Amino acid sequence: MAFIRDAWYCAGFTVGLKAGELKPLTILNEAVVLYRQSDGAAKALADRCPHRFAPLSKGKICDREVQCGYHGLRFNADGHCTHNPHGDGSIPKAATVRAYPVLERHGALWIWMGEPAQADPGKLPDFSEVEQRPGWTRVEGYLHVRANYQLMIDNLLDLSHVPFLHPFLGGGAPPPPEFRPDIRMETQGDAVVAISEFHSMPNTPLYQMLWERGAPPDIVDMRANITWHPPSMLMLDTGAKPVDQPREHGPSAPIAHWLTPETETTTHYFWAQARDRFVGNDEVSAQIAAGIDGAFRNEDEPMIEACQQNMGTADLMSLKPLLLQTDGPAVRARRVIQMKLESGRLSDR
Amino acid sequence: MAFIRDAWYCAGFTVGLKAGELKPLTILNEAVVLYRQSDGAAKALADRCPHRFAPLSKGKICDREVQCGYHGLRFNADGHCTHNPHGDGSIPKAATVRAYPVLERHGALWIWMGEPAQADPGKLPDFSEVEQRPGWTRVEGYLHVRANYQLMIDNLLDLSHVPFLHPFLGGGAPPPPEFRPDIRMETQGDAVVAISEFHSMPNTPLYQMLWERGAPPDIVDMRANITWHPPSMLMLDTGAKPVDQPREHGPSAPIAHWLTPETETTTHYFWAQARDRFVGNDEVSAQIAAGIDGAFRNEDEPMIEACQQNMGTADLMSLKPLLLQTDGPAVRARRVIQMKLESGRLSDR
Amino acid sequence: MAFIRDAWYCAGFTVGLKAGELKPLTILNEAVVLYRQSDGAAKALADRCPHRFAPLSKGKICDREVQCGYHGLRFNADGHCTHNPHGDGSIPKAATVRAYPVLERHGALWIWMGEPAQADPGKLPDFSEVEQRPGWTRVEGYLHVRANYQLMIDNLLDLSHVPFLHPFLGGGAPPPPEFRPDIRMETQGDAVVAISEFHSMPNTPLYQMLWERGAPPDIVDMRANITWHPPSMLMLDTGAKPVDQPREHGPSAPIAHWLTPETETTTHYFWAQARDRFVGNDEVSAQIAAGIDGAFRNEDEPMIEACQQNMGTADLMSLKPLLLQTDGPAVRARRVIQMKLESGRLSDR
Repeated sequence: MAFIRDAWYCAGFTVGLKAGELKPLTILNEAVVLYRQSDGAAKALADRCPHRFAPLSKGKICDREVQCGYHGLRFNADGHCTHNPHGDGSIPKAATVRAYPVLERHGALWIWMGEPAQADPGKLPDFSEVEQRPGWTRVEGYLHVRANYQLMIDNLLDLSHVPFLHPFLGGGAPPPPEFRPDIRMETQGDAVVAISEFHSMPNTPLYQMLWERGAPPDIVDMRANITWHPPSMLMLDTGAKPVDQPREHGPSAPIAHWLTPETETTTHYFWAQARDRFVGNDEVSAQIAAGIDGAFRNEDEPMIEACQQNMGTADLMSLKPLLLQTDGPAVRARRVIQMKLESGRLSDR
Repeated sequence: MAFIRDAWYCAGFTVGLKAGELKPLTILNEAVVLYRQSDGAAKALADRCPHRFAPLSKGKICDREVQCGYHGLRFNADGHCTHNPHGDGSIPKAATVRAYPVLERHGALWIWMGEPAQADPGKLPDFSEVEQRPGWTRVEGYLHVRANYQLMIDNLLDLSHVPFLHPFLGGGAPPPPEFRPDIRMETQGDAVVAISEFHSMPNTPLYQMLWERGAPPDIVDMRANITWHPPSMLMLDTGAKPVDQPREHGPSAPIAHWLTPETETTTHYFWAQARDRFVGNDEVSAQIAAGIDGAFRNEDEPMIEACQQNMGTADLMSLKPLLLQTDGPAVRARRVIQMKLESGRLSDR
Repeated sequence: MAFIRDAWYCAGFTVGLKAGELKPLTILNEAVVLYRQSDGAAKALADRCPHRFAPLSKGKICDREVQCGYHGLRFNADGHCTHNPHGDGSIPKAATVRAYPVLERHGALWIWMGEPAQADPGKLPDFSEVEQRPGWTRVEGYLHVRANYQLMIDNLLDLSHVPFLHPFLGGGAPPPPEFRPDIRMETQGDAVVAISEFHSMPNTPLYQMLWERGAPPDIVDMRANITWHPPSMLMLDTGAKPVDQPREHGPSAPIAHWLTPETETTTHYFWAQARDRFVGNDEVSAQIAAGIDGAFRNEDEPMIEACQQNMGTADLMSLKPLLLQTDGPAVRARRVIQMKLESGRLSDR
């Protein structure tokens, strides 16, 4: 199984990378070390000294450079060895380590795993909706998942699982026919949008909690529209509002899902949610963070991991899965990934 | 390594499958889910929804059907999808899951892993000797063993290991020559019988304990005749009696050993023992169950697993083992299995 | 990856093999059992009965023989079966198990893994420097390391890592240029000697502690000359002395490192150190043993294992490592191993 390399992948949150820290992370099967130079700039190198293959993350930061903990070679952020403490101190030409472009945006770190020359910051989709900004409060979290990232995209692009897998959120049963949502797919270039709009639905505990201004209505309009950007970033626009009124009249709680393949069968899952109600209220933030983390950790994750175990290392489509109407967006996303992988093979590998 | 598929395999005990329970079990490398319909009938399906490959055992039983816990598809015991809660509710033709014939007999559940059309209940050997019936009391147990099932057949078909591996049972040394048992092999069709009859032997702690009627004699006749039925069911006819008297004059304690391959290197081991002494005595039942479980768990199992580790995944015969006279029955059983596997390959695979 | 077979490998310490003990040990991927006959002689057999492949180490010692714990076959130290307790007691010709020559010398057990006819005790290098002998006290220890033995040879033949990996021992920085050691390589047949001699160096905590006779000087001459003998034995001649005086005027603490491959990626590491100061002082012995064990366990071992993980199962040279001047001895040793493996393949395998 191959990965799309020419892409930005989330490598953690801004607040998660401290000064002086050498943070090892495996991404697309490659060992990477993230760190901040003494000037605070986030950088990434292959976590493997070219001399004896010691992980650089076991060394230390010396000003703007990383010193290997085994024999003391130093490397700058371009990956060039700048110091050899042994013998006559000469530095062989081959004394380099792979350097990865890093971008810090939307409160997160982004690493470019492909050709550095292609690392255009403009290729990162806009996630400013989940930034910490005036009038909004953000919560964020991380989970390590033992499943291929595409199974997680499948999960997020087909929210019909909610009433079955999340009985608390969905009531334990699909909505009665008269409340059936308007579900459809749109495409925007390579992006896929799965639209789920519910008109005159019973309100949910989450939006009752977030209503803030006046008593929450029993019946609301709700939306859960999710946009997938290749290879593995999703933006869920979700909120509730009084029936047939503008969305600003009810709470919004957009949430970004950034999936970064660690290996073929494990995934780093970063999420960030913003809300425009109870802004700055730490208690509400803690409740929401626990709720999102719990739903994924206790309900989605065990199911997705069990599917992965049943599938082994086979690709989903090779197993000829039964396809339902609700699989449209997920199948479309898989096709985009497949096409990108094939065109990548044609062009350079 | 292949398995014989057209056969009944034990999948647990009758009392072990509760109403409302979805019980996952891997048999011959296949994930299976066992359950009881609302009418109590035991059924088995592949534990893998054809949609996203979620284990059906993570769903729930709805009357006579199983509902997948991920997206809510429902399947009946024939493996047909009967309900799709999404979209227009249409059910694609491919919405089926493999169904396995199940038989409930002798206090156990039996699953047919081959062609359903061949699943004749008459092909299950008769184990009524170990049934719970008037004048007898049954105890039963289960062990998960990290060894190929054929190594366990080898163990059971060659009881010459008893004095070495089970010093408490066998006294820690082989019997002196004057007590040497009458050991011989018989075949009955595909079945193999290993006969071990001991004339005028010192009584054993087990049969002293089970004597019940009068003081146990010091010298007895004993038998430990074991019949193997392909692929992996064994019936041990064992008991002691006063020298040269009918077997009814002493206790009998027949025990069935039902081995079900989980994978090439792990096995489900079910056993059931009946006795005609101390009938209904729970204290004796508990002592016997602990004794059988302990002997296997602490003595046979570690040795068989150690052999398996030394052999890796190689087939025993390919390693050219040293063969002794006592290996006759085990070698015969291996040949029957080999012939059945080869004729199976000729006929349909 | 192949191993050099025609060689003595350390299989433990003399005091580590007790009478009556059957000690299993994997060496060069082979399961071996070590034991002492009733006369005290150390012997080694393949840990695998030829009958059912039970580990002989799960049996027991009967006088000069080993009895298998499964069916009671007995084998002598030549590997011949001498007793079959079953049937007519006949012993098939094939009833043999591989026997390995064993040598007991320098307080350790040595096993010959190749052709027994080649097992010349004269091929064991002389390690009498670390024997328990008058005027010297010995400490010894063992570590199980999750890395290929060649990575450990690399580590020991290039002591330039000391100031980086062992900040307590080396001060956390390379020595200033005026103290740079005289580092050079010599070869003696297949053996490789890495010479590190330091003139007028600041004394170290270890040699301050071991000085014993009078106040330790601040400035000393030190040596750390290490000789590698193929395939994996190293002798470190190390000590300190007053500047420009004979070595007897200061403490010596030679240490042998005996590396025995367990598998391609794990190694048995035995070490033995002798000293000529504080002879017989158990407190000093305990301090030194803890110091050596701690430095290796907490500093070398995690780094070497991390290199191994980064390399996977690839051979170091196939990964085209960056080579520095300080790698000379380690590269030479790797070439000798490579040549021996290739000539071995030409001659007999």
